[in-house]
Amino acid sequence: MFRPPRGTRDYLPWEMWRRNWVIDRIREVFEAYGYEPLGTPAFESWEMLKLKSGEDIIREIYYFKDKSNRELGLRFEWTASLCRVVASHRELPKPFKRYAIGPVWRYERPSEKRLREFWQADADIVGVADPIADAEVISVAVDALKRLGLEGFKVRINDRRILEAFIELLELPRSLSLDIFRAIDKLNKIGVDGVDRELSKLGVSEEKRGKLMKLIDVKGEPEERLGEVEEILKHSEVGLQGLEALRGVVEYSGRFGFKPHLLLDLSLARGLDYYTGPVFEIYLGDVSISIAAGGRYDELIQLYGGDPTPATGISLGVERIVATLQELGVLDDLRIGTEVFVASASDSVRDKAIEIAQRLRRAGISTDLDLMGRSLSKQLEYANRRGFRKVVIVGSRELERGGVTVRDMETGEQRFIPLESLLDHLSPH
Amino acid sequence: MFRPPRGTRDYLPWEMWRRNWVIDRIREVFEAYGYEPLGTPAFESWEMLKLKSGEDIIREIYYFKDKSNRELGLRFEWTASLCRVVASHRELPKPFKRYAIGPVWRYERPSEKRLREFWQADADIVGVADPIADAEVISVAVDALKRLGLEGFKVRINDRRILEAFIELLELPRSLSLDIFRAIDKLNKIGVDGVDRELSKLGVSEEKRGKLMKLIDVKGEPEERLGEVEEILKHSEVGLQGLEALRGVVEYSGRFGFKPHLLLDLSLARGLDYYTGPVFEIYLGDVSISIAAGGRYDELIQLYGGDPTPATGISLGVERIVATLQELGVLDDLRIGTEVFVASASDSVRDKAIEIAQRLRRAGISTDLDLMGRSLSKQLEYANRRGFRKVVIVGSRELERGGVTVRDMETGEQRFIPLESLLDHLSPH
Repeated sequence: MFRPPRGTRDYLPWEMWRRNWVIDRIREVFEAYGYEPLGTPAFESWEMLKLKSGEDIIREIYYFKDKSNRELGLRFEWTASLCRVVASHRELPKPFKRYAIGPVWRYERPSEKRLREFWQADADIVGVADPIADAEVISVAVDALKRLGLEGFKVRINDRRILEAFIELLELPRSLSLDIFRAIDKLNKIGVDGVDRELSKLGVSEEKRGKLMKLIDVKGEPEERLGEVEEILKHSEVGLQGLEALRGVVEYSGRFGFKPHLLLDLSLARGLDYYTGPVFEIYLGDVSISIAAGGRYDELIQLYGGDPTPATGISLGVERIVATLQELGVLDDLRIGTEVFVASASDSVRDKAIEIAQRLRRAGISTDLDLMGRSLSKQLEYANRRGFRKVVIVGSRELERGGVTVRDMETGEQRFIPLESLLDHLSPH
Repeated sequence: MFRPPRGTRDYLPWEMWRRNWVIDRIREVFEAYGYEPLGTPAFESWEMLKLKSGEDIIREIYYFKDKSNRELGLRFEWTASLCRVVASHRELPKPFKRYAIGPVWRYERPSEKRLREFWQADADIVGVADPIADAEVISVAVDALKRLGLEGFKVRINDRRILEAFIELLELPRSLSLDIFRAIDKLNKIGVDGVDRELSKLGVSEEKRGKLMKLIDVKGEPEERLGEVEEILKHSEVGLQGLEALRGVVEYSGRFGFKPHLLLDLSLARGLDYYTGPVFEIYLGDVSISIAAGGRYDELIQLYGGDPTPATGISLGVERIVATLQELGVLDDLRIGTEVFVASASDSVRDKAIEIAQRLRRAGISTDLDLMGRSLSKQLEYANRRGFRKVVIVGSRELERGGVTVRDMETGEQRFIPLESLLDHLSPH
């Protein structure tokens, strides 16, 4: 028996209906915010993929050659493809707000929570330097999560330039800054001692390690804590720029309506190399697992050959969101699957049953019918097992009276419904 | 500047909105018919992929090894993955009706009409041997095409067993039958002379070539022509089985409501190796380019290790359908893109503009707003260029009177709308 390749999985209908419901809601909210769809291929040239990626990620890309020996790789996220398109289509009006929802692939050690094929739903704004754009991408993610029924999640924010200012303040070598950010980024996974060990390995002295850990240990309501950060950073130009951007995001968060979710967290680093400004992560419960994350990347489009163009974006992790919703039971009561089953009481009415099913289908009511020539009792048994919500029983006696019997499978109630009012009766209200 | 890999392309928003509209309509019709979504990975094990594929297709699969040297390949269609799932999940209730919509990949010579990454939308019924299932999968495709605004398309049908009977009748070697089917399948591309040459290359004598070409030259209204086919096949058991199945499809086509589209065509062979019964292709205009195609494959699930299980299905070619719709201008008047733009008449009202935009978005009205701090005239210019249909102008004087100005960008008409009725005014009716 064949199985899906290691790190990938199948989604049977009961799960897929729920996944699709989640994806559809995210898309609705993205579109309500004016983000536009962009389509790019599943694989890109290897040269392009490795351009912006650190060693860690290059190792995780599914690499292959096509039959003309072109070097290709499966996309491991959406941002590189977006930057490629923006760089080569200068005619796109700015701001360009795009969304993309689909699978990405990474060759990581698979676990229940980490698959090698997983879906990301991204919303990005290209062409806006002001923190209003960072606030808007956070806002669209927050509203998508709320639309899905999630509450109580937190949006941790920081700015890369504040961390850079700390490197400067402590007179640590700038060449180490990305490695230091990556170590800090693991704080919620490996704890303070773990980060201390990693920093020690990088050659950071005990004294500086202690100071750095204290500097990044600022966490709380942004408006309460930004004052003390300013005190620390008052002599660092780059640090004050970061602080200014965070102030902007906090201010806009009130207008956009997500201020209660905001949490300043100077230990938030985000591993990726290319962030240049505000970075953010959304989590619910377990702080080591983010359900959405993003940041500003003002230098990336230039790297792909485009004009210097500011950009910021956020990415929602579809599998983690679905898993969270499932744990919370939010998806249990979802009305999924096919609505109506049309059963034939006898062979003589099967043609009529098909006609009735076709009328319902063309009116947009999801409808199935017996394809197996089963007896009525077998059909009802099947309908019950499959969870259809309504069964239309077509019988010759009822047809003579110009109607059919409709059974509500939840209440067990049966009613005679004239054919001319069947559509109305079955339409979802 | 980087480009998408050869044979793939980007879809910019104006195109992607239309693609998504097409895909959404297909999905709606699939779901209205009671087909259920199934999710399978983009790549499968090489061993599995090559199992059912002829040499032609194996050559077209994107093959690669993962970093543990597992042999994998990108899916080149949806059927193999469906069979794998059905074979390994015996618990799935039958009939199992599933749909899948997404990209597949084939390394073919790319052209404008043939990409290496293209989307297929499949609907299949597993577990039903009766031709009612073949009729239903044709019907769902027909209704999807109608829903998209297409008319005048034809559904060519044949049955593999009729072609097998011809091989038998002419005493041609059965080992050649698949090659002969593939030659016949090219009829609309290479013409009668071309097929004749191919058959000659296979060693079919001139006399038998002439007879075969005459046998397959039956084309027309099924009910008019099936009688003569019966006359030819009356001594062939397998041929009569095929005829019987076609009669079933024709009879059901009346009930399902697609009889006017049906065309019997004994030259329809379908290249794929695994078909065992009725085969069908839908085309519009150019008969060499099908926009949907499928057939019955009763032996395939067994091949993947499952119980012997009858199955049939149809696949819609998304790119070809979109191209056809575009040629016909069906997509021109589609209401795509973002509906409303909220403009600020001055800096003092920008916060209020954000609040208003957020209210509209949360009510599901797709809304954008100025993120660039532009002057009102610049904002209106941008709104016009981007094609928003309504502009909400937030000004301090109107706010004092408890409302905003709404400009209809199509008519140019401007009206004062009180804030409390803004949602009603802008909701699509």
